[in-house]
Amino acid sequence: MGYTPGLHILAEIKCSDKKLLADANAAKKFFHELTAKHQLQSLGEVFHSFGGGGGFTGVICLTESHLSIHTWPEYGMITFDVFLSNYQKENDDTARAMLDATVKYFSATDYHINEIKR
Amino acid sequence: MGYTPGLHILAEIKCSDKKLLADANAAKKFFHELTAKHQLQSLGEVFHSFGGGGGFTGVICLTESHLSIHTWPEYGMITFDVFLSNYQKENDDTARAMLDATVKYFSATDYHINEIKR
Repeated sequence: MGYTPGLHILAEIKCSDKKLLADANAAKKFFHELTAKHQLQSLGEVFHSFGGGGGFTGVICLTESHLSIHTWPEYGMITFDVFLSNYQKENDDTARAMLDATVKYFSATDYHINEIKR
Repeated sequence: MGYTPGLHILAEIKCSDKKLLADANAAKKFFHELTAKHQLQSLGEVFHSFGGGGGFTGVICLTESHLSIHTWPEYGMITFDVFLSNYQKENDDTARAMLDATVKYFSATDYHINEIKR
């Protein structure tokens, strides 16, 4: 397709901590620290908690593309995406480091990833 | 991984209309109409135009997960994602219809997709 902007990692993550899976604010703080650590620039974000012990959904728009998370506490399940373009610098390893940090944050019991070079 | 929330379609789309690739407001209107048509519920959104003939980036967070778009007019290139969970109803065909509508909106000259069942 000509131009290849960067790496998109899609992860399905198992987590047994229902409290963590319902806590949008804690996750927001974690992702703010993570994006700052990797010097990524946020253009805006949406975090929404479904409440009542349900999950949350969050997206952070970045100069370098985006990251997204959706949680289902009732199934001990997370879908997490990080897509970073290499427009300004090579970010493939950053995307992988952000996945690793997310897996650790949720103390994942198992996870499966797809790496898509776009 | 146990629970399988839904279908995520990732598309790389070629488009030669640089004006359309730079027009965040027109795309926002298009996606609002598209999500309304398919009775999807928005939880919030971020649209950012890079200005100066550059592209834009946009994410709409949905009750059913999210859609995202990033454009690169300088390369005639779009990355588009739509991820719809089947929590409330079966949405696989809706995701495919939204891809088709997006391909038409940009008068794509070529496109490539990955369908990931998550």
